[in-house]
Amino acid sequence: MIATKGYAAQTATSKLEFFNFERRDVGPSDIQFDILYCGVCHSDLHQVRNEWGGSLYPMVPGHEIVGKVTHVGAKVKKFKAGDLAAVGCLVDSCRECENCKQGLEQYCYNGATGTYNARDKVHGGVTYGGYSKQMVVAEEFALKVSETLPLANVAPLLCAGITTYSPLRHWKVGKGHNVAVVGLGGLGHMALKFAAAFGADVTMLSTSPNKEADARKLGAHHFALLNDAKQMKDLKSKFDFIINTVSAPHDYNALLRTLNTNGTMICVGIPPTPIELMGFALLGNRRSIAGSSIGGIPETQEMLDYCAAHNIVSDIELININYINEAYERMLKGDVKYRFVIDMASL
Amino acid sequence: MIATKGYAAQTATSKLEFFNFERRDVGPSDIQFDILYCGVCHSDLHQVRNEWGGSLYPMVPGHEIVGKVTHVGAKVKKFKAGDLAAVGCLVDSCRECENCKQGLEQYCYNGATGTYNARDKVHGGVTYGGYSKQMVVAEEFALKVSETLPLANVAPLLCAGITTYSPLRHWKVGKGHNVAVVGLGGLGHMALKFAAAFGADVTMLSTSPNKEADARKLGAHHFALLNDAKQMKDLKSKFDFIINTVSAPHDYNALLRTLNTNGTMICVGIPPTPIELMGFALLGNRRSIAGSSIGGIPETQEMLDYCAAHNIVSDIELININYINEAYERMLKGDVKYRFVIDMASL
Repeated sequence: MIATKGYAAQTATSKLEFFNFERRDVGPSDIQFDILYCGVCHSDLHQVRNEWGGSLYPMVPGHEIVGKVTHVGAKVKKFKAGDLAAVGCLVDSCRECENCKQGLEQYCYNGATGTYNARDKVHGGVTYGGYSKQMVVAEEFALKVSETLPLANVAPLLCAGITTYSPLRHWKVGKGHNVAVVGLGGLGHMALKFAAAFGADVTMLSTSPNKEADARKLGAHHFALLNDAKQMKDLKSKFDFIINTVSAPHDYNALLRTLNTNGTMICVGIPPTPIELMGFALLGNRRSIAGSSIGGIPETQEMLDYCAAHNIVSDIELININYINEAYERMLKGDVKYRFVIDMASL
Repeated sequence: MIATKGYAAQTATSKLEFFNFERRDVGPSDIQFDILYCGVCHSDLHQVRNEWGGSLYPMVPGHEIVGKVTHVGAKVKKFKAGDLAAVGCLVDSCRECENCKQGLEQYCYNGATGTYNARDKVHGGVTYGGYSKQMVVAEEFALKVSETLPLANVAPLLCAGITTYSPLRHWKVGKGHNVAVVGLGGLGHMALKFAAAFGADVTMLSTSPNKEADARKLGAHHFALLNDAKQMKDLKSKFDFIINTVSAPHDYNALLRTLNTNGTMICVGIPPTPIELMGFALLGNRRSIAGSSIGGIPETQEMLDYCAAHNIVSDIELININYINEAYERMLKGDVKYRFVIDMASL
């Protein structure tokens, strides 16, 4: 076993604190890498505080991980020592079911293995995430990272990036489409960048008028206030797609009414309480509401390559790891532009 | 004006009773026809009792109308006296918006005109439906009907038929698809017939074990009980599409979990209360829930032609018009196989 260290929550009510633990030895198909940066996702906080239930402690969060390879197993082909590598939300899946075979590991019928807070079906024990110094992972679940992008800003692409890139690609969003992005946080700011890069006409929908300037800088062509009934009425039947990144309860029916014929609202943020839909808002204009969860490994690589080719990264605030508990409190208030990333040199 | 007679509700709490009223004179683009049969849709009852609000009285319900043409205006091309004709849920729309131009009159941006219980924007007054002797309608909103099918059984195709045909065609449902139909009523029994005719593998989902034999006769290859947790669990990730015809509140999340990757639940029945969706049921397998409302005029004609070519009609119980109030009570209990149709000779 490989001794390493990180930050962990010992219970649902404890703060994150320094934690010594072990990684498995590097197997023939594994790579080991030094973690350089790890993004801080809102779902880290949900799981640390057991807000979705079933959390496993001690928990080392983090699934937006980039670093530099130090060792590779004998059968590893994609990586050599010194390469950059990244890990997102998944570190394994059954690799045999129809979804895995199609590169949709996130929808593995047998249950994919999360990067942290998951039982490791192959090696036993529990997975530990990226708020740590070293990582060992099967090369099939590690991504190649371009040397050309600022590495700290790449980290959030592994969750916030792929979570918004994947549905935009799946629904073939691009030129000629009117797209709304709801919520300007970690996911929302990446959705703006991708939707604009793909050629769509992009509207930011937010409750905060002071987000307009930023939204426009990030790619929005238009801005409207969600809580302004007149503005929302003027948007009736306007959008072909809505990327809804909001995970707090809100009025889905008012949003549905802004969808044009055959329009789809794609939810990538999900509130813990039930969504209340009025059926008539779906019947009108033959509208749909869909969910989309991160992305599979091949598409995550495609997204990273696209970002390298088009110079797209996340806007971040770089922090030291001992700031993590304060960062969580600020994240709860939406006080971050637009993703905290931990500089692992600070550990 | 043309004197005619029918059955009408005078208030939200009155029974349907005999009613003398007038139709407009036959304009240059209108046809007049004698109504021979009219189907009884659950939405007739909703509107008669003002359960959706905004009902206009006196109300002559009925939007599953077939009859024989008696007069045609000078400019009419599709019909001549003696032809069969049909009218469904719509008698007009703006005819100019993008949706109308694409034959999606049901989604007219300016609001289509319902066959009854609607204000007539062109001729003034209120529209009266098919529980009556004569009808006058613009030929553009009248459908051609084959002489080869039993005419009384054709009537329900104008609403129950097109409402299920349209989404199956829009989502290109056919061979290789696993399709569930939820609810075996007027809509459900047509959904079974169409889905089976289109080549899908069809499962009936119902709460009534005694519906299995009928469901299989109507086209279902499989049958499962909605309220049997074991059976529902065995259907996890099975279906590509669910046609949900139930308009009573029920558990949408249990149904969503039976959808396979990229699966869509299409709601054609809509409960009056909000649908409660758990977001995670959408995120898993990248599922969608959609609404679909009747169908446009060109597709309604396509559906009638398809039914004539494939010998598909509704299963009906033919009634005299003076039985209509009792029929409503039986419809409320689901006690009809599978659509009441009024024989207008009884008026």
